[in-house]
Amino acid sequence: MTGSFIKVFAPATVSNLTCGFDILGFPLENIGDELSIKVIRGKRIRIKSIKGFELPFEPAKNVAGVVARKMIDELRLDFSFEFVIKKGIKPGSGIGSSAASAAGVAYGINELLGKPLKLKELVKFAMEGERLASGTPHADNVAPALLGNLILIRSYNPLDIIQLPSPADLFCTLIHPHIQVKTKESREILEKRIPLDKAVQQWGNVAGLIAGIVQSDYSLISRSMEDVIIEPIRSVLIPRFDEVKKESLDAGALGCGISGSGPSVFAFSKGEENALKVRKAMIETYHDTKIKFDVYISRISPHGAYVLERSY
Amino acid sequence: MTGSFIKVFAPATVSNLTCGFDILGFPLENIGDELSIKVIRGKRIRIKSIKGFELPFEPAKNVAGVVARKMIDELRLDFSFEFVIKKGIKPGSGIGSSAASAAGVAYGINELLGKPLKLKELVKFAMEGERLASGTPHADNVAPALLGNLILIRSYNPLDIIQLPSPADLFCTLIHPHIQVKTKESREILEKRIPLDKAVQQWGNVAGLIAGIVQSDYSLISRSMEDVIIEPIRSVLIPRFDEVKKESLDAGALGCGISGSGPSVFAFSKGEENALKVRKAMIETYHDTKIKFDVYISRISPHGAYVLERSY
Repeated sequence: MTGSFIKVFAPATVSNLTCGFDILGFPLENIGDELSIKVIRGKRIRIKSIKGFELPFEPAKNVAGVVARKMIDELRLDFSFEFVIKKGIKPGSGIGSSAASAAGVAYGINELLGKPLKLKELVKFAMEGERLASGTPHADNVAPALLGNLILIRSYNPLDIIQLPSPADLFCTLIHPHIQVKTKESREILEKRIPLDKAVQQWGNVAGLIAGIVQSDYSLISRSMEDVIIEPIRSVLIPRFDEVKKESLDAGALGCGISGSGPSVFAFSKGEENALKVRKAMIETYHDTKIKFDVYISRISPHGAYVLERSY
Repeated sequence: MTGSFIKVFAPATVSNLTCGFDILGFPLENIGDELSIKVIRGKRIRIKSIKGFELPFEPAKNVAGVVARKMIDELRLDFSFEFVIKKGIKPGSGIGSSAASAAGVAYGINELLGKPLKLKELVKFAMEGERLASGTPHADNVAPALLGNLILIRSYNPLDIIQLPSPADLFCTLIHPHIQVKTKESREILEKRIPLDKAVQQWGNVAGLIAGIVQSDYSLISRSMEDVIIEPIRSVLIPRFDEVKKESLDAGALGCGISGSGPSVFAFSKGEENALKVRKAMIETYHDTKIKFDVYISRISPHGAYVLERSY
């Protein structure tokens, strides 16, 4: 094994999708992390370089290191890995930065080992990275980053991951303001108990969103994209959230909400033309601020992590 | 108008369907109330007779009277109605006894008037009957009793009612033990605030149930039929609930839970043969008690209320 090398790409992901807190997510096209993984002798995990953004080199404090450690231990490997991490996603962006690295490592190691595990079985390893990053081992970013497509985490215990069909004309427009929201902190501000009547509203919307997605009913998708539990609390951490949302909807978006724990904000539109109008509206809302930002347009990507390069 | 007469049937309904508290319901075949409605002079509503079960004759305290009053007022009618109510559903059974009467009255009056309102527009009138009966104007019984099919109440404000397709082979087996559980009381014991993590579990299951139903994925339906919020509290009011559930699942049911607010317990099965096995299991669980009970097998009925007889 020693010396074997693989380079993988793992995509950024949008999770929660308004009413689907902790249970829904999908990967974006063309945005993500690149992970180069080399099999090395011994038991020590090494992080050789991290490009793009600053992250800890100590394996126990790095998502890649934590996922690798879990796999080495559970699969009883008698060798280790060296990583070169090229971050394409800023940490704390709300589009699954930690998840991309976690999913990429789990996927890459599994490929190096000759695929002993199925993609769904890799999710629990990648979730260990999320535990480190956010305090909670949620799966709504790592599962879509591994599997591709719109993903429902029906249950965490036992883990039950369902790939949903997605409407052909559904486009996502996403704005990523360059401020950092730490997932851990944005979880801590949530209330531990919620009113039953709000919960009923939320699962009514979840039911509508799923029925709309599976049946390609864009109007139902639009009516169902409402989050009465999380958004009212988290949106205060995002500058101009209300304006971005209002302008996106006015520009023709089906719905708009926080991506993951923010600060990224996403909107769904029917058709690319509408998605472009929403892009324009998002840019106009932010362009007179001093906050830098990126804007992306993407379909729900059918691709999870994939191999870029390998050698034996 | 005076003298016009109609007789309608309105079906019993199963609501909640485990994880879908207050948002999901469907009508049963062949079980329900018959309402005879005659247009009379004046403003006074009259309840001439009530057969089957005892209910108040005073219109303001009777579901039929309350729904009729609401329609007379809102539609500014200068005449009134006389009712003969033949209850086929015991009040407090958990299969929408009040809802059947409420839906039947709204449907019947609308027919007598020449259908000025669409079926979905009748739901809010029928909900007034539920407000009287349970303290909360929920729609997950009256909407399926009016519209037929599996119904999702996506939102109450504004009211958004969605008809879902249902799998061809999905059968319901239902046991109705003859003890009374008052909806009002079974609502009062629920907690007003619920833990966020349980709510996430619940909406994961709701999402799975809807995806399973729309895609006829029986295994997913089965895995999703879990209620971590309401059932643990309400099931204590139902004698032998845990046994009925266990035996039904052992007999091959996809899932089992409380119908409405109980005491009826329903199970879904794939195919009539399994539904019959579940019926046997339910009967065996109850047969040595002193509680009388009925057992029904039904598909998800595509029919809401309908006309039995009319004269002008």
